[in-house]
Amino acid sequence: MGVKIMSKEVVLRILAVVFLILTSCLVGFDSQTKVIFFTISKKATFRDLDVLVHLVEVASVAAGYNVIQIIRCLVPSGSPEKLVSSYWYLPWLSMLLDQAIAYIMFATNTAALQGCLFALNGESSLQWMKLCDKFGRFCHQIGGAIFCGYIAILFMAIISSLSAFSLFRLYSAKRLLVLKGKRTGHHQTTI
Amino acid sequence: MGVKIMSKEVVLRILAVVFLILTSCLVGFDSQTKVIFFTISKKATFRDLDVLVHLVEVASVAAGYNVIQIIRCLVPSGSPEKLVSSYWYLPWLSMLLDQAIAYIMFATNTAALQGCLFALNGESSLQWMKLCDKFGRFCHQIGGAIFCGYIAILFMAIISSLSAFSLFRLYSAKRLLVLKGKRTGHHQTTI
Repeated sequence: MGVKIMSKEVVLRILAVVFLILTSCLVGFDSQTKVIFFTISKKATFRDLDVLVHLVEVASVAAGYNVIQIIRCLVPSGSPEKLVSSYWYLPWLSMLLDQAIAYIMFATNTAALQGCLFALNGESSLQWMKLCDKFGRFCHQIGGAIFCGYIAILFMAIISSLSAFSLFRLYSAKRLLVLKGKRTGHHQTTI
Repeated sequence: MGVKIMSKEVVLRILAVVFLILTSCLVGFDSQTKVIFFTISKKATFRDLDVLVHLVEVASVAAGYNVIQIIRCLVPSGSPEKLVSSYWYLPWLSMLLDQAIAYIMFATNTAALQGCLFALNGESSLQWMKLCDKFGRFCHQIGGAIFCGYIAILFMAIISSLSAFSLFRLYSAKRLLVLKGKRTGHHQTTI
C-alpha cells in the first residue's frame, strides 16, 4: 500500500513540476514592445510588476523542492511505519514543507492575479489606469501563466493532503500522538 | 481524548471568529475624508477597492461558518469512531470545508494585501500613483485589519490540521481507506 501511494505521489509531483516550470517560463519570457508615439516605444516585461518577479521566484523554488521530493520517493527507504518510528521528524518535516510550499505558492499566485486584475480593469476611483488594452498579448500570456499556476497548486494541495493522510493514519485513534503498534505487546495491530 | 481535541477546537474556533469579526469591522467601518482643494473633498472607503469588499464578505462568511462549527462541537455526538463508521461523510465534509474556508480566506487576505501594497508604494512603471500618503489613517486601519486576518488564518490552519489529524488517524495504517477496527474480528484494536 505504501508503494501504491508513493507511485501516485511521484506522478502528482511530476505534474506539479511541469505546471510550475510552465508558469515560471510563461511569465519570465513574456515581453511586448509597443510604439506609443513615433519613435518612442515602451516595452512591457514581468519586471514592471514586483509581484510577477516574486511569482517566477516562488514557482522556481517550488519546482526545485518537488524535484528533491521525487528523488526522495524513488530512493527505497523501507516501510513508512519503520521510518516514522525511527526518524519521526522526517515525515512531519516533509508534510509541513508540502503544506507551506502549497500555501506560499497559492498566496503569490493570488497576489499576481490581483495585480493583473488591476492591470486589466484599472481602478477608476484610485486613478489607476488599465494597461491590458495596450499590451493585449502580454496580458494573455500572464493570464495563461496564472492559470497554470493554479493547476500546479491543485496538484500540490492533493499531494499535501496525501502526505498528511499517510502520516496521520500511522497514529493511534485513541491516544494522542502515540504511534500504532506501540504499548500493545502481543496484540500488535497490523490493520 | 476526543473530548480534549474537541475543547481545543472550540477555543481555537472562538479565537478565529474573534479575529475574523475584527477584520470585517476594521475594514467595513474604515473611512477618511480629505479636503483636496478648498471645498472639494474626497472620501476614502473600503468600497473604492473591490478586493476590500470581498475581504469583508469572505471574513463574515468564515466567521459564520466557524460559529456553526462551534455549535456542532458543543452538541454531544458520541465517540468519533462511531460517528465516522455510521456517517463517514460528516467528518470528511467538515474537514474539507475547514480546508476550503482557510484557503479562500488566505487568498482574499493576500489579494487585499497586494492591493494595499500598490496603494502604499504605487507602481511607477505602470503610472499607478500611491494613495497612502494622502489617506494615512485609512491605510493604517486597513493594514491592521489584514494583520488580524492573517492571525485568524493561522488559527484556521491549525483547526484544519487538527480536523485532518482527528479524521485520518481513525483509518487503517495498512489498508487504504479502511477504518480501524473493521475486518479484524476479536483482535479489534483500541489503541
